[in-house]
Amino acid sequence: MARRAGVPVGTVKYYLREGLLPAGTPTSATQAQYGEEHVERLALIRVLVGTGGLTVAAARAALQMIDAPAPSIHEVIGTAHQAIGPEVTAEPEALDRARSLVEAQGWQVACDSPALAQLAAALDACDAVGIPGMERLVGRYAAVAEQLAAFDVAAVPTTSPADAVRFVVAGTVLLEPLLLALRRLAQQDASFRRFEGPDVTPG
Amino acid sequence: MARRAGVPVGTVKYYLREGLLPAGTPTSATQAQYGEEHVERLALIRVLVGTGGLTVAAARAALQMIDAPAPSIHEVIGTAHQAIGPEVTAEPEALDRARSLVEAQGWQVACDSPALAQLAAALDACDAVGIPGMERLVGRYAAVAEQLAAFDVAAVPTTSPADAVRFVVAGTVLLEPLLLALRRLAQQDASFRRFEGPDVTPG
Repeated sequence: MARRAGVPVGTVKYYLREGLLPAGTPTSATQAQYGEEHVERLALIRVLVGTGGLTVAAARAALQMIDAPAPSIHEVIGTAHQAIGPEVTAEPEALDRARSLVEAQGWQVACDSPALAQLAAALDACDAVGIPGMERLVGRYAAVAEQLAAFDVAAVPTTSPADAVRFVVAGTVLLEPLLLALRRLAQQDASFRRFEGPDVTPG
Repeated sequence: MARRAGVPVGTVKYYLREGLLPAGTPTSATQAQYGEEHVERLALIRVLVGTGGLTVAAARAALQMIDAPAPSIHEVIGTAHQAIGPEVTAEPEALDRARSLVEAQGWQVACDSPALAQLAAALDACDAVGIPGMERLVGRYAAVAEQLAAFDVAAVPTTSPADAVRFVVAGTVLLEPLLLALRRLAQQDASFRRFEGPDVTPG
């Protein structure tokens, strides 16, 4: 299995010990047989802890959700955000500020959602450094986030709860690095046009 | 200084040793005086390695850019992306795919930009897991990234190269967690509306 998936044997053993990968069918005291579903699971673990940047604990939680999906897809999204982290702590006042911002957008979110603490910490960090025009930027970012979320949620397959949870976990973890990479590339292009393009007017 | 900034003394000493924080003015063999600019720098370091999630090496590179900004703001953005990582390696075919995608968008980017490797790795990871409708999602994400980049680049202050580089570093590192938090919160709202709202039509 390790060879087929291109993963070191020691790593496969580690995933087995950590409960990320289910045991195979024993064929002798020291050998076990692994099927196609093990190879697929191994590929999923690799992207969650690789590109996805999840800790082993977060990956385990994500896989548990895939194995036993919640009956409601809305619940799945909440649980995915809870499980996948990152774990961030925020001061009560910072949390209140994040909640007001979400309310101002008219968004319905769980009041204990870890994404609120992430938002609070990010707002605090921007304040600490002093990003000019922050309030306006946040409003624009929120509008863009709404567009992204509409695409994401419309794309959730409703064929089965298992398909839905798999999409939500992968979509949350893997589309984030995709989005950040695209934003950086688009920034390079936009800065080229603003600062180096043919229309540059001298400062 | 440590007390004023709410940072443990050992941590301040570590930043001094690592060259993140410049030395103060010596007042005796074992004491030094630190000014307001040290406290500000300390706050910046805290957010870069805290919320920003930078390694100490990446934070050092970011601070060096702030201390000695490149003369062209377009160059600053490229250097910031180079310095701030994350470091990702991608196969040549995956990189070609990322380049074609960027070309299809009509974006002008440096052909050795690390964001290309980040995009390539993210696309590969999505393929490995099998996200349905991926091509369409990528196109939509790219369009949204273009909007974000337009806001970001328009907001870069041109008052001085130092102001510009400070904004670019902080904007790249700190607006990323902000964007991801907003996307997750907007997803919860969108999923509430799609799956739990009053208009839900059965299966």
